[in-house]
Amino acid sequence: MTEVLLRGGTPWGADGPADVLVRDGRIATDPVDPAVIDISGQFVLPALVEAHCHLDKTLYGGPWIPHSADDTLAGRIGNDLSRRAELGVPSEARIAALLRTMRSYGTAHVRSHTDIDPEVGLRGVEAVSAAAAEVGMPVQQVAFPQHGVLTNPGTLDLLEEALKSGVAAIGGLDPAGIDRDPVRHLDLIFALADRYGAFLDIHLHDGGTLGAWELELIAERTRALGLGGRVTVSHAYALGQVDDAHQDRLAAVLADAGVALATAAVYSFPVPPLKRVLDAGVVVACGHDGIRDLWGPYGSGDMLERAMHLAYRSTFRRDEDIALALRAATYGGAEVLGLADYGLSVGCRADLVVVPVSSAAEAVVTRPPRTLVMISGKVVHSLVSEGGGVLHN
Amino acid sequence: MTEVLLRGGTPWGADGPADVLVRDGRIATDPVDPAVIDISGQFVLPALVEAHCHLDKTLYGGPWIPHSADDTLAGRIGNDLSRRAELGVPSEARIAALLRTMRSYGTAHVRSHTDIDPEVGLRGVEAVSAAAAEVGMPVQQVAFPQHGVLTNPGTLDLLEEALKSGVAAIGGLDPAGIDRDPVRHLDLIFALADRYGAFLDIHLHDGGTLGAWELELIAERTRALGLGGRVTVSHAYALGQVDDAHQDRLAAVLADAGVALATAAVYSFPVPPLKRVLDAGVVVACGHDGIRDLWGPYGSGDMLERAMHLAYRSTFRRDEDIALALRAATYGGAEVLGLADYGLSVGCRADLVVVPVSSAAEAVVTRPPRTLVMISGKVVHSLVSEGGGVLHN
Ligand SMILES: [Zn+2]
Ligand SMILES: [Zn+2]
Repeated sequence: MTEVLLRGGTPWGADGPADVLVRDGRIATDPVDPAVIDISGQFVLPALVEAHCHLDKTLYGGPWIPHSADDTLAGRIGNDLSRRAELGVPSEARIAALLRTMRSYGTAHVRSHTDIDPEVGLRGVEAVSAAAAEVGMPVQQVAFPQHGVLTNPGTLDLLEEALKSGVAAIGGLDPAGIDRDPVRHLDLIFALADRYGAFLDIHLHDGGTLGAWELELIAERTRALGLGGRVTVSHAYALGQVDDAHQDRLAAVLADAGVALATAAVYSFPVPPLKRVLDAGVVVACGHDGIRDLWGPYGSGDMLERAMHLAYRSTFRRDEDIALALRAATYGGAEVLGLADYGLSVGCRADLVVVPVSSAAEAVVTRPPRTLVMISGKVVHSLVSEGGGVLHN
Repeated sequence: MTEVLLRGGTPWGADGPADVLVRDGRIATDPVDPAVIDISGQFVLPALVEAHCHLDKTLYGGPWIPHSADDTLAGRIGNDLSRRAELGVPSEARIAALLRTMRSYGTAHVRSHTDIDPEVGLRGVEAVSAAAAEVGMPVQQVAFPQHGVLTNPGTLDLLEEALKSGVAAIGGLDPAGIDRDPVRHLDLIFALADRYGAFLDIHLHDGGTLGAWELELIAERTRALGLGGRVTVSHAYALGQVDDAHQDRLAAVLADAGVALATAAVYSFPVPPLKRVLDAGVVVACGHDGIRDLWGPYGSGDMLERAMHLAYRSTFRRDEDIALALRAATYGGAEVLGLADYGLSVGCRADLVVVPVSSAAEAVVTRPPRTLVMISGKVVHSLVSEGGGVLHN
């Protein structure tokens, strides 16, 4: 039995300071003879959840590589295809470097969309799995048809192959805008997800009324197949583009079907109206999208920074609003990934982050150094001295 | 004579590594017997310029204060007025703390809009001046009618009083949307600026065709009075809201009149089309707007982070585009503030930042620790060891 007592911190959601006991990797009660770590005056969060990234594409950890694509989507796809071989992407070493950085920032769980296409095959899936095993970090992969399903023959077989190899989820991509036949695209990937009991996570950049209509198609199929709780739409820019009444109708349809949203609040693209969809009961997760890759040079791996972008783009100023962005980067992500025993309650896995702030809002706005990161009860990052005092604050 | 040689770094704009000699506070040539600081492999920028902030309002440096305003502009103005006395704003100590942080991030020059109204009088101006003197940092103040000119009797006299007391610039605020009479508002502040040879920097949130028309009014008065190069419009959301052809027409009108823009790329508000206005010849500067104040809790004081927001919201991915955002946070700001001898050429003031990156784009994207900050040839922040080696990288 190993016991650690985090003493004097304030867990998120508690009324004030409350010690957190960790025993055998879980949050527990009734300490016997714990080692004590003093975190007085600090704030305790459940570990961060990165719910949408593209580990296989990353160039992280090496020297700066100037972005080489032009400003069109076709240009970015072509650039990606032509340069990934040259740059050695996917790279287990780069992915592992990024995972270590993410973990040092307090991320314990990751969903990553991994390119699947006839050229790269399942090499991306294998590289991500190998890096995750090397670092010892759980990564839930989405087999992602980045270059289309219908428009890229052979991809559907690869999606199935990925599922057979143990990948937990499959993706889709702009069923109308990219794949040109939304009904057939969705029917195919929903049937496949249903057959294998897989999660489904669909990239939807299609905007305005087109994207809004595709959200309806997705909700209809989710209901029809009883896949509520297993389907996520990523980005869903359309939700931020239609009028308020339309947003409300769509939010109700998504909530009713059990379709979640994942948002990254990237660049100047529309952000789904967070309060509105949460009020309707939609689960919302948060992620980076690309991190230092051939699609764009931005991204740090820090989910508090990502939550800042989400809160900032949502024009949230009040603490309780800013906290909604952090909920997306923690509890919302956990729900999308289907994590059991996530949170700060007794019995939950001891996946924790300690930060030198007083509130969730302050954590998001200031993105402070992480005092302590604990995963399954093991300290994986620490600024706390052996004696228990805080070294950096 | 004091001489320092920064050895081995790459100055921004140079083809490769080039030593930078600093003598008696200026960039010089022909070293005699300089102290040497090794910055091999690092990048040298001119000091950052914060061209739009509100130092007098800041709550920086104290414990977290939850934001207390509702979501309306009237709510934020009311909240500001009612809470600033309670919280001791303006506070010389808080302003000085923020200035020290800004300087440690490499900012050497600041333009700050200071509230002027019958209640606060010139106390804000005095607090900012005192903090600037305490820290030893130049702050160019804009006497800012935050609560209107025409709608707030007595404010015009205070603007004139501020100019008499030595303030370099006066401001304006939504001549139509807030002050309800754009022609009279602009005529009054332009006449005042002209009479005192002051800079003019007008907050313009008014959107769409209304804001676009006000930009024309501002350009017309700038031309008529020959004030080109001394007038700035801050925010100018309207420029990001009208159609492309209209943007081009306005950009040409502003460039022709010598009206500059200052942008902060805040929240989800429209960002002026940076490439388009630069192509037309408009000078663009960058700033934070509020930093941890009663108008919003965000802001770090780091102008590389602010340049990141500008580049990111502009959907800039290529190095040469991202560098445009850094130009706004350096050369553009220097031009708006009317700084003489700014830059990296021989003879310029030795206001420098050294960062452990290879390019302007990498500096903006990664916002690395500042290896060295030098202002007027004096090291004000350093991670370089006495022996000359770099401690942190
Ligand atoms: Zn994505
Ligand atoms: Zn402002």
